[in-house]
Amino acid sequence: MRPSGRKTDQMRKISFERNFSKHAEGSCLVKFGDTHVLCTASLEDRTPPWLRNTGKGWVTAEYGMLPRATGERMKREASSGKQSGRTQEIQRLIGRSLRAVVDLEALGERQISLDCDVIQADGGTRTASITGAWIALHDCLKWMEARNIIKVDRVLKDHVAAISCGIFAAQPVIDLDYLEDSAAETDANFVMTGTGGIVEIQGTAEGKPFSQDEFLTLLGLAQTGIAELVELQKQAIAG
Amino acid sequence: MRPSGRKTDQMRKISFERNFSKHAEGSCLVKFGDTHVLCTASLEDRTPPWLRNTGKGWVTAEYGMLPRATGERMKREASSGKQSGRTQEIQRLIGRSLRAVVDLEALGERQISLDCDVIQADGGTRTASITGAWIALHDCLKWMEARNIIKVDRVLKDHVAAISCGIFAAQPVIDLDYLEDSAAETDANFVMTGTGGIVEIQGTAEGKPFSQDEFLTLLGLAQTGIAELVELQKQAIAG
Amino acid sequence: MRPSGRKTDQMRKISFERNFSKHAEGSCLVKFGDTHVLCTASLEDRTPPWLRNTGKGWVTAEYGMLPRATGERMKREASSGKQSGRTQEIQRLIGRSLRAVVDLEALGERQISLDCDVIQADGGTRTASITGAWIALHDCLKWMEARNIIKVDRVLKDHVAAISCGIFAAQPVIDLDYLEDSAAETDANFVMTGTGGIVEIQGTAEGKPFSQDEFLTLLGLAQTGIAELVELQKQAIAG
Amino acid sequence: MRPSGRKTDQMRKISFERNFSKHAEGSCLVKFGDTHVLCTASLEDRTPPWLRNTGKGWVTAEYGMLPRATGERMKREASSGKQSGRTQEIQRLIGRSLRAVVDLEALGERQISLDCDVIQADGGTRTASITGAWIALHDCLKWMEARNIIKVDRVLKDHVAAISCGIFAAQPVIDLDYLEDSAAETDANFVMTGTGGIVEIQGTAEGKPFSQDEFLTLLGLAQTGIAELVELQKQAIAG
Amino acid sequence: MRPSGRKTDQMRKISFERNFSKHAEGSCLVKFGDTHVLCTASLEDRTPPWLRNTGKGWVTAEYGMLPRATGERMKREASSGKQSGRTQEIQRLIGRSLRAVVDLEALGERQISLDCDVIQADGGTRTASITGAWIALHDCLKWMEARNIIKVDRVLKDHVAAISCGIFAAQPVIDLDYLEDSAAETDANFVMTGTGGIVEIQGTAEGKPFSQDEFLTLLGLAQTGIAELVELQKQAIAG
Amino acid sequence: MRPSGRKTDQMRKISFERNFSKHAEGSCLVKFGDTHVLCTASLEDRTPPWLRNTGKGWVTAEYGMLPRATGERMKREASSGKQSGRTQEIQRLIGRSLRAVVDLEALGERQISLDCDVIQADGGTRTASITGAWIALHDCLKWMEARNIIKVDRVLKDHVAAISCGIFAAQPVIDLDYLEDSAAETDANFVMTGTGGIVEIQGTAEGKPFSQDEFLTLLGLAQTGIAELVELQKQAIAG
Repeated sequence: MRPSGRKTDQMRKISFERNFSKHAEGSCLVKFGDTHVLCTASLEDRTPPWLRNTGKGWVTAEYGMLPRATGERMKREASSGKQSGRTQEIQRLIGRSLRAVVDLEALGERQISLDCDVIQADGGTRTASITGAWIALHDCLKWMEARNIIKVDRVLKDHVAAISCGIFAAQPVIDLDYLEDSAAETDANFVMTGTGGIVEIQGTAEGKPFSQDEFLTLLGLAQTGIAELVELQKQAIAG
Repeated sequence: MRPSGRKTDQMRKISFERNFSKHAEGSCLVKFGDTHVLCTASLEDRTPPWLRNTGKGWVTAEYGMLPRATGERMKREASSGKQSGRTQEIQRLIGRSLRAVVDLEALGERQISLDCDVIQADGGTRTASITGAWIALHDCLKWMEARNIIKVDRVLKDHVAAISCGIFAAQPVIDLDYLEDSAAETDANFVMTGTGGIVEIQGTAEGKPFSQDEFLTLLGLAQTGIAELVELQKQAIAG
Repeated sequence: MRPSGRKTDQMRKISFERNFSKHAEGSCLVKFGDTHVLCTASLEDRTPPWLRNTGKGWVTAEYGMLPRATGERMKREASSGKQSGRTQEIQRLIGRSLRAVVDLEALGERQISLDCDVIQADGGTRTASITGAWIALHDCLKWMEARNIIKVDRVLKDHVAAISCGIFAAQPVIDLDYLEDSAAETDANFVMTGTGGIVEIQGTAEGKPFSQDEFLTLLGLAQTGIAELVELQKQAIAG
Repeated sequence: MRPSGRKTDQMRKISFERNFSKHAEGSCLVKFGDTHVLCTASLEDRTPPWLRNTGKGWVTAEYGMLPRATGERMKREASSGKQSGRTQEIQRLIGRSLRAVVDLEALGERQISLDCDVIQADGGTRTASITGAWIALHDCLKWMEARNIIKVDRVLKDHVAAISCGIFAAQPVIDLDYLEDSAAETDANFVMTGTGGIVEIQGTAEGKPFSQDEFLTLLGLAQTGIAELVELQKQAIAG
Repeated sequence: MRPSGRKTDQMRKISFERNFSKHAEGSCLVKFGDTHVLCTASLEDRTPPWLRNTGKGWVTAEYGMLPRATGERMKREASSGKQSGRTQEIQRLIGRSLRAVVDLEALGERQISLDCDVIQADGGTRTASITGAWIALHDCLKWMEARNIIKVDRVLKDHVAAISCGIFAAQPVIDLDYLEDSAAETDANFVMTGTGGIVEIQGTAEGKPFSQDEFLTLLGLAQTGIAELVELQKQAIAG
Repeated sequence: MRPSGRKTDQMRKISFERNFSKHAEGSCLVKFGDTHVLCTASLEDRTPPWLRNTGKGWVTAEYGMLPRATGERMKREASSGKQSGRTQEIQRLIGRSLRAVVDLEALGERQISLDCDVIQADGGTRTASITGAWIALHDCLKWMEARNIIKVDRVLKDHVAAISCGIFAAQPVIDLDYLEDSAAETDANFVMTGTGGIVEIQGTAEGKPFSQDEFLTLLGLAQTGIAELVELQKQAIAG
């Protein structure tokens, strides 16, 4: 029995609120239950130094948490003077995941920065970030298309979404909330495209090692869940 | 004529959304028009070192802006590794303003941290932060009272609220939005209590110096506006 | 009764020692009683990036305190690895105050850096800094005029000086020393020009809020005091 | 055809040189071909703050690269003033992997720090680090056992080793060297125990997404390779 | 011929102004010609962690330069966020030099911090710092003796002073000013006690290597010069 | 009697292992007994900003210690976020020493970075670093000569090597190991060229000051030792 009463293959209530921000070229407040992440996409007319004069663009991401997004207030990273290893790991993952579905040559020599800021946390902030950032990125590209800068269909090759799965109380479950996450024996994050291709897999034994069979069960749960997330993304951008 | 069409003594639409955060002891999403600030109050069972064993508590504040709260994306302070001078100046102001209406001895040896994070900026983020942080602080103290830790009436001595006034296009106006703020000749922030006491005055000539008469006109606008803000705070906490 | 025996409207002994530094284009050791600040003006043939190719120059300021300028030794900011919020607030104030009387276009694309280093502190270091920095700036501009780079009269539009006023032991007093400053109920800093224009007002209730009347009394004290400071500046540069 | 002429399931020449360091309680110079990592295990009589008085110990890891371990000299992290996101990600992985086979209660309230310093890099530094760090950890525990501090068999529950696999030139291969790594379409790292349990899986599509079948092939390669690494570890500690 | 017209064995005009600072337990403005350094000695009732409960005290030093102490304005170390290698090297040297003449056990478990801040630089700032810091230290110990904390004669075992010598224009000279220092072929700093013992020698070939004979000539110059400095210290503290 | 049983004028066993690193243009693992330092020379096609367009090149050095190179594990400088004063002092010394035998104009506008990383420490790491870095530099220049970039004989003017001497148990000894170094009364480092010129002398009294005679004895020991080191360098590059 899951603390929330959800079935093992049941994700939390997912929602996307587009155009949450007045200023950003694309933005989305994504909710996976009580996990709320504001994703903004900012277009910048510059690229990292190593891409200059290559004709290619870049998509990058930064991740942050408001100090009281969590049960206990955490020290603000801006005041402690550096981003934690965890923060850097997550923002590198978000950036890689989005770049996997973007044609950087078709984007041209510009950069889109995705900021994923956790307003409220209840587990699964990195998977919510990736899933919501795709919407923000999409809307930023639409904004660019409306100004004849790029063609969305040539730049954005596919959907990308992410979900966590884990073994909680000896049972494989999908979309762990904080209570489950803290107690899970195995914790895995999956990032996949709309066509089912795998972009990233991260599986970690928190307690005892896991078997290949257990891992395949988690992968199966993720495949179903991500298909559902992609469906919700499609409805959101159609809205 | 103001860009927004407002009258010179007309503030933007103000609203307070209490209990915005699931985790914080007190929280409030405050809106001054398109300026949206999430204020959370976090109770911590410790005080700064210099107050240990004095029986007195502390109220402090931190301020931040999401990178794309503004028209142009700003560098994330956590990634640049330090808080700007502006950020530090604002968070020191918020802390001083709230402490002006708190009896730190009645609070006892604990600290309340107010985090003011700007979700969307359109001028006046520091005054919105102070005004909203008072609600978050009030609700945190209510939470404590419900657990018999303190008495709200003994700790919280008065309301505190803040507003900006300035001289825009040669006219004294209240509650400047970003367009006005960027072009104002004089910019002043006022922090006052519910009983009309002045807690903080900051007036700056952006262009040519201002006269005593001009300053008194701004002060008069602020007095009326802050009285209105305090009234709105009263309605909010009564709700 | 003030600890120093001064009258309520009596400033400390003020002195300016010009050309204190062998190397700087302009320099001044300013003393407000036991508060001693060395102000140097350094001409640099560059401007901040955002002014390049605009034809405009810049005036900026940095502030520091020797570790044992104070009663208790303070940690050296260079060794703690960052400037405190207080330091940043003060140096921003000094820069703004001086820029208020400079025609940046007439200065041309160059920067003058004002370094205000407190050799000994006894309250009022920021107001002494502003008042002394004006002398250093003036002398730097004279140095430039002697080399046909600019005309002083076109660049330097007016005097600027600053003084603190506060309510100490229930009485409005001018130019607080450290003993008064630590115990003041209200503390305000005023920056004004030679023609009486107000450049900056900062008033803070340290204890209970203050009234509009009290504030106007402080403003009146400041107006008289700053007129006197400007007179002393005139004598100093005539010398 | 692999650049090195190896077969797809052929790892590079692996060697372990124990007791490489005169001072460390355990140490090992591990070589995976031209990738050379010095792993030292340091026993410290303290634990992280959150474990104090819990009776439990801790195993942690730090990772570094000599500036010219690579083809191009990289900036020294000590002089740039921070560890990169990549460094932090790798050292967190090493620490988690080793802790997966340690009984922290049997270790008692002490910490073992594993330092993995890359002397020369040619791809696969993180997997070589984990595999070599296990030897250093083992030898540190032996050192402790010789002083009657712990029993190795009660603290060290199993072997742990790691290998990278990837899809290079459309073929699944094991133990990628730098040339392969830079060109691989998919890159995965596997950490497993001596009994075949999975501790960590990290798979990343560098170019196009990969399929479940491709991933299972990589997992199969890893299982065989890690079994071989564990066998080599056994020979090394028997020597 | 030296630029200043001095003879090869002639030091610049040396002066000590004691009690320069109102707050410090000991202080001295030392001048070696146009090199002016303010040295303060601050007594603190704590020691570094490694001396706790040993009964021994500590003497340490910090060194800084005002940004415009030099011909070209230098970046303020507090704003660049770290002390340069040169600064750290000098302050380590000052601390070692003073500790060489202090009985740390007789000092007891307290720390004296010597701050040497260069107000104006014209070569030889480190040697002026050491020579002046001895006066500040002496006066701090006198202050302590007046309060029955220590006996000066038991804590301060000897004088210590320092001078630079170098080979300029093929001639060995003493007490190099900036012009000489920038062009010297060999530059050496000597720290010696009142009884002629050598505390520290640092000799560096700036251009071509120097011979043993040349070095002995510099050492001879230093011995005479330091004897003179010690005599001046004696006069100063007798004053 | 020395702890190692060595005679007072006997250095430890010295060895140079050239081409230790696969990637660097020049590299050498130098051993002075149990002190092992890996020196690499990296050629870079850029110079520091102040040398641009001067036709001159630069030789610089960085120094580091693996955390467990020492008896007690030291904090990793990359994770503490800065290099210690000691590290900076040493790397500045290494750079100066090597530049003393390089014709920077003949090198042309390029930079050679020498990285000296201590793999294992037992006293004398800075002198081993200088002595080994000369080999790495030589081999890097040979690499360049083979590509017709420079002529070794025109760039490298002489050998340079370094040794420590000190007074241990009242006896002057050469090449102190850690046990001796920690207990020495006087500690001196000498850097000299192949033709016997002195490049750098650093002598420090750790306990009581030393006399001129004592110093000359140390210098004599160093002259003999360095002649021997230069002989070993000659054999190494001939090999």
